[in-house]
Amino acid sequence: MRYFVTVEYFGKNYVGWQSQINGVAVQDVLNRALSELFGEDIRTEGSGRTDSGVHAIGQTAHFDSDKVFPLNRLPMAVNSLLPKDIRVKSARIVPDDFHVRYSAKRKTYVYKMYVSRFISPVRADTHVQVVPPVDVEIMKEALQDIVGTHDYRAFSATGSKITDNTVRTIYSAELTEDGDELTLTVTGDGFLYNMVRIIVGTLVFIGKGKRPPTALRDMIETGNRDLGGKTFPAHGLYLYSVVYDEI
Amino acid sequence: MRYFVTVEYFGKNYVGWQSQINGVAVQDVLNRALSELFGEDIRTEGSGRTDSGVHAIGQTAHFDSDKVFPLNRLPMAVNSLLPKDIRVKSARIVPDDFHVRYSAKRKTYVYKMYVSRFISPVRADTHVQVVPPVDVEIMKEALQDIVGTHDYRAFSATGSKITDNTVRTIYSAELTEDGDELTLTVTGDGFLYNMVRIIVGTLVFIGKGKRPPTALRDMIETGNRDLGGKTFPAHGLYLYSVVYDEI
Repeated sequence: MRYFVTVEYFGKNYVGWQSQINGVAVQDVLNRALSELFGEDIRTEGSGRTDSGVHAIGQTAHFDSDKVFPLNRLPMAVNSLLPKDIRVKSARIVPDDFHVRYSAKRKTYVYKMYVSRFISPVRADTHVQVVPPVDVEIMKEALQDIVGTHDYRAFSATGSKITDNTVRTIYSAELTEDGDELTLTVTGDGFLYNMVRIIVGTLVFIGKGKRPPTALRDMIETGNRDLGGKTFPAHGLYLYSVVYDEI
Repeated sequence: MRYFVTVEYFGKNYVGWQSQINGVAVQDVLNRALSELFGEDIRTEGSGRTDSGVHAIGQTAHFDSDKVFPLNRLPMAVNSLLPKDIRVKSARIVPDDFHVRYSAKRKTYVYKMYVSRFISPVRADTHVQVVPPVDVEIMKEALQDIVGTHDYRAFSATGSKITDNTVRTIYSAELTEDGDELTLTVTGDGFLYNMVRIIVGTLVFIGKGKRPPTALRDMIETGNRDLGGKTFPAHGLYLYSVVYDEI
């Protein structure tokens, strides 16, 4: 049987979702808790890696087991074995040919900022500071340039292989303002490594006049990473949801 | 000269605002940074203590020094000597007869919650979980019972001295809903020890049907703490602002 779970986590204490040599990954901790619960070696597959320090509201994962565990009790049971910064929010059974990564149709990321001369202590781990002045209206307008189907190679970390397919479709991108807070919400069929953090960094540079309002469009057209702003920090980024056509 | 500062802090790592024997208080850390900056022993006076783990968006404090420090540079200078979870947001000079506690006219506290079956990892340190079901409309209506000038002795921690004056005026109280989040905002001329946390706990018990909708009014009328709900956790509480008539 293939189990499907949605997972929320606070990224501060982890090297990201995916297991790796150095440091503790969210996936390691989840695998250990599920293995204890099921009494066998459970290995989850995630919808995609999230970087070190990135948070998730709705990461998704699947794993296989022949054991039958009551679905309505599964979240509470595995949560009792997890640290407070990782929580399984829901569980269900999916067809064997469902794959949490390949079956994903859309992903939504959220990036949280606040505009202030000083670091805000109560938001230091959850939002990223943007030093004023910043022109939010110009940012809102410029942001629309990333919507559509484009080659986003200029928005990938320098470590990306040039041979990768870097064409993606961004369905929507929105920047909202609430008091001193700015929230970017972006939905696409997939994202390159560091893509959202480079979009945000470029957008803020546009808002501060360090880049022209056309910078995002220029990056798409030229494929030149250098036309963008810096890659913004991980702790403002949240994998908000992964959507599937049908399960 | 009397300096007046506003201070934001994240309460997680502190025993509260006020210096005490056990543990590190926000005031200790601020005094040390200001003493280093001014090159003399600086002792701040705060608008009031906040409990261990409580946060502040706009705590206020004053301190005296004969030295002249440029006000526009003061926040940045002292912040460079402070940990990231404490920040001085503004500074000004006030008359010698101004007192940060006695001159305060109004204080506003905010309490942040979310309604969810599970702990939310990304909000575990900033909001308090309320397990559904909960009737928010009943809570909103019941909340209005605490507005006015009343004897709030039923809303003070059991450690409070019975001889204290426990009459306060609550100017406004509002409960707002945004998605799964609930925010209580309450403004008064002063608050008893644990008063906001007892109001919140009672309000949630009302919303869950564990207390009648009249519980807040009953507590005011009888002075009986036992008619209320439990004292809710510190980490959802924020001292939002302290307002003065004139400085």
